[in-house]
Amino acid sequence: MLAVEYIGDHAVERVKRDSVDPGPGEVRVRVAYVGLCGTDLHILHGNMDARVRRPLTFGHEMSGIIDAVGEAVEGWRPGDAVTVMPLDWDGTCPACRAGHEHICQNLNFIGIDSPGALQELWNVPAETLVALPADLSLRTAALVEPVAVAVHDVRRSELRAGDKAVVIGGGPIGMLIASVAREYGAEVLLIEPDAVRRRRIADLGTATLDPTEADQAAAVEAWTAGAGADVVFEVSGAAAAVRGATALARVRGTIVVVAIHPTPREVDLHRVFWRELRLLGARVYRRPDFEEAVRLLQAGAIPADAVISGTMGLDRVAEAVAELEAGRAMKILVDVQSTGARP
Amino acid sequence: MLAVEYIGDHAVERVKRDSVDPGPGEVRVRVAYVGLCGTDLHILHGNMDARVRRPLTFGHEMSGIIDAVGEAVEGWRPGDAVTVMPLDWDGTCPACRAGHEHICQNLNFIGIDSPGALQELWNVPAETLVALPADLSLRTAALVEPVAVAVHDVRRSELRAGDKAVVIGGGPIGMLIASVAREYGAEVLLIEPDAVRRRRIADLGTATLDPTEADQAAAVEAWTAGAGADVVFEVSGAAAAVRGATALARVRGTIVVVAIHPTPREVDLHRVFWRELRLLGARVYRRPDFEEAVRLLQAGAIPADAVISGTMGLDRVAEAVAELEAGRAMKILVDVQSTGARP
Repeated sequence: MLAVEYIGDHAVERVKRDSVDPGPGEVRVRVAYVGLCGTDLHILHGNMDARVRRPLTFGHEMSGIIDAVGEAVEGWRPGDAVTVMPLDWDGTCPACRAGHEHICQNLNFIGIDSPGALQELWNVPAETLVALPADLSLRTAALVEPVAVAVHDVRRSELRAGDKAVVIGGGPIGMLIASVAREYGAEVLLIEPDAVRRRRIADLGTATLDPTEADQAAAVEAWTAGAGADVVFEVSGAAAAVRGATALARVRGTIVVVAIHPTPREVDLHRVFWRELRLLGARVYRRPDFEEAVRLLQAGAIPADAVISGTMGLDRVAEAVAELEAGRAMKILVDVQSTGARP
Repeated sequence: MLAVEYIGDHAVERVKRDSVDPGPGEVRVRVAYVGLCGTDLHILHGNMDARVRRPLTFGHEMSGIIDAVGEAVEGWRPGDAVTVMPLDWDGTCPACRAGHEHICQNLNFIGIDSPGALQELWNVPAETLVALPADLSLRTAALVEPVAVAVHDVRRSELRAGDKAVVIGGGPIGMLIASVAREYGAEVLLIEPDAVRRRRIADLGTATLDPTEADQAAAVEAWTAGAGADVVFEVSGAAAAVRGATALARVRGTIVVVAIHPTPREVDLHRVFWRELRLLGARVYRRPDFEEAVRLLQAGAIPADAVISGTMGLDRVAEAVAELEAGRAMKILVDVQSTGARP
């Protein structure tokens, strides 16, 4: 079977290797689609070389069909459509014991810390499987993982119907957070400097703002009749966005830190104090978030076609990566069963 | 009667003026003791000149006895022992309408935005009064306001009995937060670089740490068996403390921003994201915090004698300020009825 590996130095390689029978408690999944995300780019750029063992079969957003079931696996059969929640916690650390397994202090994130989905046949622990309904296409189902991220972020914010929410950053996660927040009854304003991304969001009916043109604090104040936004999602990763985010939130408002900020950022703590703001970190998801993501995609509540900007075969992963690096693509799916010429 | 005013340029002046009859809805209080705090120093240093109208009779931590009652005031009589919750909200701004009157967007903080307690006879709206029990001395009762700050901060953190809490900063508010948190069943570690302050805290039975000598993250990790602290109170106002605070909190732990940080501070947002931390601003108090502060002081749960490092007459306010500026005094009370020679 074929697989794609990160081998270091920005390079990916397509390799052929033997498939392996699923061990006890495992299933083997015939992978259908794998979405590429910002974390995959971080891996390929070498930013995570201290963490990842090379060669690494990466990829953690996927859909597929169960191909074989190992011993002691109950409730799953070959032919079942599934996705994988790529978290493997130790169950013994203080975070796990306190019920926060999804951010286990020794978390094995499958696809980063252990082999991921960019292979035709992938063995995973049965506990990571999430069932897909028959009427959800495998292509759309490849979005379950990023939608689960958005669901987790929105739930963490405790956003309520009627709230006004600002999303800073119009990439795939920002777009998905906006969609989930609107589905839950919020009014959303998305702030994004790139005109192409703004247009894509606006076409979905979400209000947008160009922070390079408008005074965003004044705009949000006017939009909220002087109160400020109930919730602000920081999805951009930009230092300037963090400096500005505190000015957008109402008294006792919430700012959710979704983006990865590799270095410390300046935060207006006086505003945090003055307005008794709440700043929350939000990372990955729990199983109920995954199940809710499946439900939202099945219900058509997520603009999957607007999020997926292209599909490429397993032989074109390097090309897909280059397109993502160029900046304006949203989500590119790898069609793992379309493998091009055999190497 | 005598009063003390900030007249600008670091200067205070003792002045004599006529007392005024309380207007409708007001009471006149014969002020007993006034505590000086960090905000008063900020005023005197000119840091708040853009906000305060000079001359300003400052002072907002106090105790006293009702001297006269204006029209339409019910439930209060001359001779009642009282303190004042020095907040005057507009009741109409978005924050007030949402039930957050204590951080009204147009808050009048009495003693900063309007005349305060450093006068022998002080007229205040009856709504600001909080009753003092007969068995609480007026000297101790001058601590109600800062204790209410500490109660508000601890309640905002949602600290529970058995939690491990770190307090960064060993001034009066840090000491009071430590006392309230211990009273509510937490184990407390207080981080403070000044040896005199550490000794004072340690003498009350609270564990302390010198951040210049110890690796505080390693110390907190060992203290919490690898989990991290449930709650971290940032009371120091120091940039370095903010940089370090995120490393001390457990997964899903809480950091309360109590101190005033006049400029933006670097915050490790990656750690906020990674551990799903919660950073909360906490400012002033609500009436239930004041009432709880009275109860705690009456119950002897607050080490009032350790917090109060001295008492001086109204003629020695400048001297009291100089002693506070020198750094190691905790709370200095002004005995307003001990006025020295008349000017």
